[in-house]
Amino acid sequence: MIATKAYAAQKANAPLTPFSFERRDVGPDDVQVEILYCGVCHSDLHQVKDEWGGSIFPMVPGHEIVGRVVKVGSNVTKFKEGDFAGVGVMVDSCRVCKNCAQDLEQYCVEGMTGTYNAIERDGKTVAQGGYSSQIVTDQKYVLKVSPKLDLKAVAPLLCAGITTYSPLRYVGVTKGTKVGVVGLGGLGHMAVKFAVSFGAEVTMLSTSKSKEADARKLGAHKFALTTDKEAMEEYKSYFDVILNTVSANHSYEQYLDLLDLNGKMVIVGLPPEASPVGAFTLLNNRRSIIGSMIGGIKETQEMLDYCAEHNIVADVELIPMNYINEAYDRMLKNDVKYRFVLDLSTI
Amino acid sequence: MIATKAYAAQKANAPLTPFSFERRDVGPDDVQVEILYCGVCHSDLHQVKDEWGGSIFPMVPGHEIVGRVVKVGSNVTKFKEGDFAGVGVMVDSCRVCKNCAQDLEQYCVEGMTGTYNAIERDGKTVAQGGYSSQIVTDQKYVLKVSPKLDLKAVAPLLCAGITTYSPLRYVGVTKGTKVGVVGLGGLGHMAVKFAVSFGAEVTMLSTSKSKEADARKLGAHKFALTTDKEAMEEYKSYFDVILNTVSANHSYEQYLDLLDLNGKMVIVGLPPEASPVGAFTLLNNRRSIIGSMIGGIKETQEMLDYCAEHNIVADVELIPMNYINEAYDRMLKNDVKYRFVLDLSTI
Repeated sequence: MIATKAYAAQKANAPLTPFSFERRDVGPDDVQVEILYCGVCHSDLHQVKDEWGGSIFPMVPGHEIVGRVVKVGSNVTKFKEGDFAGVGVMVDSCRVCKNCAQDLEQYCVEGMTGTYNAIERDGKTVAQGGYSSQIVTDQKYVLKVSPKLDLKAVAPLLCAGITTYSPLRYVGVTKGTKVGVVGLGGLGHMAVKFAVSFGAEVTMLSTSKSKEADARKLGAHKFALTTDKEAMEEYKSYFDVILNTVSANHSYEQYLDLLDLNGKMVIVGLPPEASPVGAFTLLNNRRSIIGSMIGGIKETQEMLDYCAEHNIVADVELIPMNYINEAYDRMLKNDVKYRFVLDLSTI
Repeated sequence: MIATKAYAAQKANAPLTPFSFERRDVGPDDVQVEILYCGVCHSDLHQVKDEWGGSIFPMVPGHEIVGRVVKVGSNVTKFKEGDFAGVGVMVDSCRVCKNCAQDLEQYCVEGMTGTYNAIERDGKTVAQGGYSSQIVTDQKYVLKVSPKLDLKAVAPLLCAGITTYSPLRYVGVTKGTKVGVVGLGGLGHMAVKFAVSFGAEVTMLSTSKSKEADARKLGAHKFALTTDKEAMEEYKSYFDVILNTVSANHSYEQYLDLLDLNGKMVIVGLPPEASPVGAFTLLNNRRSIIGSMIGGIKETQEMLDYCAEHNIVADVELIPMNYINEAYDRMLKNDVKYRFVLDLSTI
């Protein structure tokens, strides 16, 4: 067993404090990654607070992991010692169901195994995440990370990146597609970068005028203040695609109304409460709402390779491990541009 | 002007009574159709009761019209006297917008012109529907009807038919697609017939066990009682497509849960109230909700030709004109299999 240093929540809502536990020994198919950086995702906070129910404690959060391979098992061909590697939102799945078979392990019929706050497929080991010194993961669920990019800014690609890249691809965003992005946070800022790089015309939809300059800096071509009814009139039936990244409770209908013919609003945020959706709004323009959850391992690798090729990374604020509780407080106030990333050398 | 006999509601909620009015003279592009049959659609009832707001009275409802061409204008090439012809839910649109240009006039940017309860594009004439002896319509919005089929049973194809045919095509229903149909009424029974004819495996989803025999008679392969929790467990993540035809208020979420990977629920009914939709349900299996409204003229013709080729018509109960108010009462009790059709020879 491999002694591992970490930060954990001992119970729901508890502050994160230093914690020690053991990772499994490196099996024949495993890769041991010394964690260099780990992004701090909003879902870490939701789960530490047990807002989705069923949280397992002690909990070591973190599923935007980037590090260096320090050991590989005898069957491992994908990695060698010294390679850079990433681990995202899942570390396993059933591998044989029809969804796993088509590289969509995130929709595994048996349920994917989350990187933390989950029981591994041995039925007993509690999976623990990336706020830790190292992780041991089957090579199938480990991503190759190019050394060309700024590693700390790559970490958020493992969740925020793939969560926005995958749906933009799924709905076919390409040159000229009119894309609206709702919410300028960790997800939203990546959505803007990807949509712009795909050649789309990108509009930031925000309740706060102060986001305009930031959105334009990220590449957004337009900005629409969603609280301004007149401005909103201009955008009625305008967009081909709206990527809705908001995780707070809000009305879906107001954005649906902005979709043009065959327009699609993709939901990637997870508001705790359902939002009313009316048939008239949907029937008009043959609009859709689609849910999308991260991406499969194959597509995550494709996204990382795309980022290396196009020099795309997240905008991050690097923080030491003992700053995590303050970082959580600031996230609740949306006081981060756009992702905190833990420097695991400080653990 | 052409003297026309009809039945009309003089005000909201009034019973329909005999009414006379004049149709315009046959212009160069017009076709005059002597109406033989007109289907009675639930939306007739909604509009007579002004349940959607803005109803125009006196109102002659009816948009499932089949008849015989009695006169054509000088430019008309599509029809000759004696042909059978149909008029559906719309009689005009702007003809030049991007949606009209791609044969999706039902989504005309300026708004299509409804067959009744609408102002025609001259800005003053009140469009009046098919509970009448004849109609004069631009040939572009008139459909060819094969004499091979039972004409009275063709009438409902003009709304119930295209409303279900179009979305099944749009979402790509084909051999082996697992299709669930919610609601066994005018729309639902056509949805079953079309989905079966496309080679899909069709399941009727109903709150009433008594619908099972009827659904199977229409060709449904399976039946699921939606009030039976155990039965519903079996159908979790089962369907590729659910066609939801229900116009009464109901929960969308219970059906979303039954969609498999990339599954799509198409809404064609118009419940007055919005239904709450939760992000978790959508994200699971990358599910969609899509609204769909009738179909364009080109696709409506395609549907009618398909029906002629495959011998598909609606199941109807033929009624005389003076039975219409009783028919409305029975529709409110779902006491019709599956569409009333008016015999206009009785007007």
